Amino acid sequence: MADTRNIWDALDSFSEHWSPRRLASINDYDVKVFKAQGEFTWHSHPDTDELFLVLAGELVIQLRDGDVVLGPGDVHVVPRGVEHCPRADDEVHALLIEPRGTVNTGDTPSERTAEVRELG
Amino acid sequence: MADTRNIWDALDSFSEHWSPRRLASINDYDVKVFKAQGEFTWHSHPDTDELFLVLAGELVIQLRDGDVVLGPGDVHVVPRGVEHCPRADDEVHALLIEPRGTVNTGDTPSERTAEVRELG
Repeated sequence: MADTRNIWDALDSFSEHWSPRRLASINDYDVKVFKAQGEFTWHSHPDTDELFLVLAGELVIQLRDGDVVLGPGDVHVVPRGVEHCPRADDEVHALLIEPRGTVNTGDTPSERTAEVRELG
Repeated sequence: MADTRNIWDALDSFSEHWSPRRLASINDYDVKVFKAQGEFTWHSHPDTDELFLVLAGELVIQLRDGDVVLGPGDVHVVPRGVEHCPRADDEVHALLIEPRGTVNTGDTPSERTAEVRELG
């Protein structure tokens, strides 16, 4: 992995939605960037919190008791075990922090399950 | 801690240099914001990597074998045990990710040692 990465260059390098790319690793945690549009899938991560940081656009994190709406610069942590379903009505670019090996669909594997990919 | 935090609002809320504020926590890791100007102090973190993400300005991470120059959007991870000394010729705003309890001056405590502070 390159010693230094630029977030904006990383985002320019791919176009797929809901397919996170590893930007950096710190100890056994990954910092990933992703693009999204449309609705993801309801899931939870029984063993870990998940941090979202929106870089561009608006990301709605649907929770069972209401929506959290995140704009650029907004950071929200979904606690472990909490069911959530991200949604982006228009394209959103965001950053994720979670332990290495965390699967995007958590406890609900589906055709949306995607291994984290390396940047080109 | 608030459920959702905005990075830019967080940065607007304080002015001290080299005094990180906790923006969010994920499991036992902290995401902190800080402002810096001038030279910090040479130190290393024997037990953890440290991730820097520059939000505004230019941060120079001096290493024993050369400088790493980071601009907005640049991410760099200083591996555990690697001596480094951050420097900002003009004010820089940046984000840090590291395990909870990581001390800013690492193995070299000094008058620059600062506990992470909570945002107001």
